[in-house]
Amino acid sequence: MSAAPTVLGVLGGMGPLATADFMRKLVESTPATKDQDHMPVFVHSVPQIPDRSESFLAGSDAPWPFLLAGLRILESAGAGAIAIPCNTAHLWHSRLAAATQLEVLHIGRASAEAVTAHPEALRRVGLMATSATIQGRIYHDALHAAGVDVVVPCARDQHERVSAGIAAVKAGDLARAAAMLDRAASQLVDDGAQGIILGCTELPLVLSDHPSGVPLFDTTHLLVKACIAWWHKATAARRRNETISS
Amino acid sequence: MSAAPTVLGVLGGMGPLATADFMRKLVESTPATKDQDHMPVFVHSVPQIPDRSESFLAGSDAPWPFLLAGLRILESAGAGAIAIPCNTAHLWHSRLAAATQLEVLHIGRASAEAVTAHPEALRRVGLMATSATIQGRIYHDALHAAGVDVVVPCARDQHERVSAGIAAVKAGDLARAAAMLDRAASQLVDDGAQGIILGCTELPLVLSDHPSGVPLFDTTHLLVKACIAWWHKATAARRRNETISS
Repeated sequence: MSAAPTVLGVLGGMGPLATADFMRKLVESTPATKDQDHMPVFVHSVPQIPDRSESFLAGSDAPWPFLLAGLRILESAGAGAIAIPCNTAHLWHSRLAAATQLEVLHIGRASAEAVTAHPEALRRVGLMATSATIQGRIYHDALHAAGVDVVVPCARDQHERVSAGIAAVKAGDLARAAAMLDRAASQLVDDGAQGIILGCTELPLVLSDHPSGVPLFDTTHLLVKACIAWWHKATAARRRNETISS
Repeated sequence: MSAAPTVLGVLGGMGPLATADFMRKLVESTPATKDQDHMPVFVHSVPQIPDRSESFLAGSDAPWPFLLAGLRILESAGAGAIAIPCNTAHLWHSRLAAATQLEVLHIGRASAEAVTAHPEALRRVGLMATSATIQGRIYHDALHAAGVDVVVPCARDQHERVSAGIAAVKAGDLARAAAMLDRAASQLVDDGAQGIILGCTELPLVLSDHPSGVPLFDTTHLLVKACIAWWHKATAARRRNETISS
């Protein structure tokens, strides 16, 4: 048995279907001709963590001990970096990053980079996300710094279509979720959005395109791309070290 | 933060797409209205383990140290039982079960039970699986004991359609895999199979039904059902204990 491989740690379960979607996209996005070409991952998918958006909006830190416990389990298992397929959980990203020696990838930064690098030079993008992700400015600051305006749903649309749509995905009612979320996306396009960030990992489960043709940014997939880039870098560095020490 | 929940340990990565499929089916099969209703899982998906079928057929025990290392990580992470979404890996099931205090669920037993309990009282079923699963009799003994005949592909079909189809799934070429595997299934039906066991977790990724209308047994889904039954039992036992001790 050779040395243990470089393993990605996934702090997941937020929600669990989004974590399964992340894993599928990770496999599908990795160039491979056989099992052994794929990225090794440990996944901590423990959905009993309190709702991140509700907690943040209520000024509660309730998710933190659950996040930290998950991080510690992934560290003990031997993870080499951490990915969190949940946008809202990134409100605790800096504290997680400060609590570990491991690199904690950032879904918002990876996605904001994809928006600013888009060939259509988007100047105004819509953001569909939990209310906490919007209020916590996970996307706003990076996009404003790059000169991109962010348009969000009005309060009523946010409540009745986006938040309700995300809850419907979590309840397994994907068809109802798709209808609500599609209407919210249309309103953002009417409000001038030239692209839409699916800034909650439940959203790509039901939205893959929009009749208007504006690009949708699948943040699950953009996190997957960041993970693959990390893995290639970590694997190459490890090979160099092995060559030097052998 | 309440006590840690009862967590399922998944010894996966064999292959990684089958593990992602298992996770999605686990979520979809769990009655839930919110994230917190879902089963907590810790997944060890490390595809660098040597090919189980090739090793078994060559008389090699090469996968064993990888399986044991994965089991130990799942134990350390706090798993309460182990599920392995790979039929061929069950050739090492009894050794894994002997190496741990945890219950190790058995995909073959769960699936053979579903076959014998089928309302059509099937007397003859086809088995699509790796050559090692067939030679290692993961399904034969339980089904024969229940009076069910097992029909397997001829050597040429096994090689050119089933093994090649499984390899195509692992290489991400799902369309080509589906065509090969569908032909192998048709031959089994021509040979008198009244139902077909998809006895490799790569198969349900590309086969969900068959034009003949014979029932297909998705062993990934049948393992999921066994996991949910375990979880309900373990959670109920835990609640009883908490009531007694409080």
